[in-house]
Amino acid sequence: MSMDLLIKKITQKKNPTVVGLDPNLEQMPPELLAKNIEKYGKTLKAAAEAIYEFNTGIIDSVCDIIPAVKPQSAYYEMYGPEGVEVLKRTMQYAREKDLYVIADVKRNDIGSTATAYAKAYLGEVEIAGEKVSPFGADCVTVNGYLGSDGLNPFINLCKEYNKSMFVLVKTSNPSSSELQDLIVGDKTIYRTMAEAVSKLGEDVVGEYGYSSVGFVVGATHPRELTELRAACPNSFFLVPGYGAQGATAEDLKGAFDKNGLGAIINSSRGIIYAWKKTDADFKEASRNAALAMKKDLEIYF
Amino acid sequence: MSMDLLIKKITQKKNPTVVGLDPNLEQMPPELLAKNIEKYGKTLKAAAEAIYEFNTGIIDSVCDIIPAVKPQSAYYEMYGPEGVEVLKRTMQYAREKDLYVIADVKRNDIGSTATAYAKAYLGEVEIAGEKVSPFGADCVTVNGYLGSDGLNPFINLCKEYNKSMFVLVKTSNPSSSELQDLIVGDKTIYRTMAEAVSKLGEDVVGEYGYSSVGFVVGATHPRELTELRAACPNSFFLVPGYGAQGATAEDLKGAFDKNGLGAIINSSRGIIYAWKKTDADFKEASRNAALAMKKDLEIYF
Repeated sequence: MSMDLLIKKITQKKNPTVVGLDPNLEQMPPELLAKNIEKYGKTLKAAAEAIYEFNTGIIDSVCDIIPAVKPQSAYYEMYGPEGVEVLKRTMQYAREKDLYVIADVKRNDIGSTATAYAKAYLGEVEIAGEKVSPFGADCVTVNGYLGSDGLNPFINLCKEYNKSMFVLVKTSNPSSSELQDLIVGDKTIYRTMAEAVSKLGEDVVGEYGYSSVGFVVGATHPRELTELRAACPNSFFLVPGYGAQGATAEDLKGAFDKNGLGAIINSSRGIIYAWKKTDADFKEASRNAALAMKKDLEIYF
Repeated sequence: MSMDLLIKKITQKKNPTVVGLDPNLEQMPPELLAKNIEKYGKTLKAAAEAIYEFNTGIIDSVCDIIPAVKPQSAYYEMYGPEGVEVLKRTMQYAREKDLYVIADVKRNDIGSTATAYAKAYLGEVEIAGEKVSPFGADCVTVNGYLGSDGLNPFINLCKEYNKSMFVLVKTSNPSSSELQDLIVGDKTIYRTMAEAVSKLGEDVVGEYGYSSVGFVVGATHPRELTELRAACPNSFFLVPGYGAQGATAEDLKGAFDKNGLGAIINSSRGIIYAWKKTDADFKEASRNAALAMKKDLEIYF
């Protein structure tokens, strides 16, 4: 089961951290863009290539410390097809460095279309009998508003290709309460979603006791992390919100099981833009920030 | 307001139809792929270029009859960055033919990331002061599970760039009931979502009385269409599920107001793959199918 692949990397590196690759031209060392503008003009291509240089610099600096990266698709789509091409190239580069790649795409659609998305990120397409992998991620994020027939196509491809997925349960943003905290019967919507997703993933539980179908639960909700860890012991959590979004290591306590497993904690800005707060270059600064985060989370591991 | 732009095209063409561009290599005339494989081999590029030829053939055949097209992003992402490049080129081609372009991307994320998605599809990005449009759609579909701070960035860009959006309320698939029909207080979740979205869009109501922020409501739910039309008179509906998914013109009655406005009805497979059921070539067959659908919906218009 593919969540095992992620958990193995976490235990090997003794670090339950994923680095979010959310590139932002304005936060990068300006010479990266300047150099590419000289080559390509003020174009989407120049922006995309600057992002690629930035990403590979970060990956080189942290790949021996961290188990996984999570590129956020929006920041690549922002630069059009050129940006999307760099999303793919970044994911390939990260996999070559033996990192687990979580494509943060939050896709969702009805059955046949969900299958197309699942093939795009987790599987293969056939072109006149030739099988080709369109993006080649290890894992995707998915939105479950459409119910099980929007999720099953992803689950089926997780089985077929030994991949994994995280479904949005309780998101880290302030307005997540507007829908997710409403009460249905005697339960919140996020809890209802969690239990439904947990059930859908119960036949893909791997050797560590965790399903290939996990949840996204924000670090900004410590109480909900604890509640969901107890309610859904087979569900691994992808936890955004640590660092720049305000959550601390203390807030994460509820996410982990007694062996220090159960969750992978994302940090994006806090690591990749650490250079803005130090004298170090962006590579060294990101390495230092990743080491500090590892140390910060050691208490659980 | 941008929903006005869509409604104007609907009234000019006397046709509340949008053609879904959901390309599927196996359903296309096989010579399109064969020709491109000769040029590019069995690659993502060959698949993407076959899709482009197919799409432009369909657009040429129906652009004087229909007001809008809706490319479904999954079927382009399936062919990697090459497919995404053809998604952009298809949208540009459709706009040149004076069609309104609804990018069916169902994107969703927290505030800052939602802004990146909104810029990608509806707005512009700045590259060293140069403003560039990454994809250039007129409208997007959005998933509201994350609440208002995932929707407001899209709404803000709808205002700034005179664009529009449709938020998933009640989807056309069988399992839509699993979450969307649950009861919160005295209301279904889809109704709760509808009212929240309607409120968020109330200051972008245009000259026809419809907001730039509309709903996706499936044609497979005639009762819910009627309920939501009455409850949210300022919300325009994008209605999938007609034709191949089983809904008939009769099922759509509730979607329209007394002037025949209020909704645009999507058909994908029923139009673009009509050639498989006739002796006509794919262009002629799609034109005939689009004309038949127009006639079918005339009773409301």
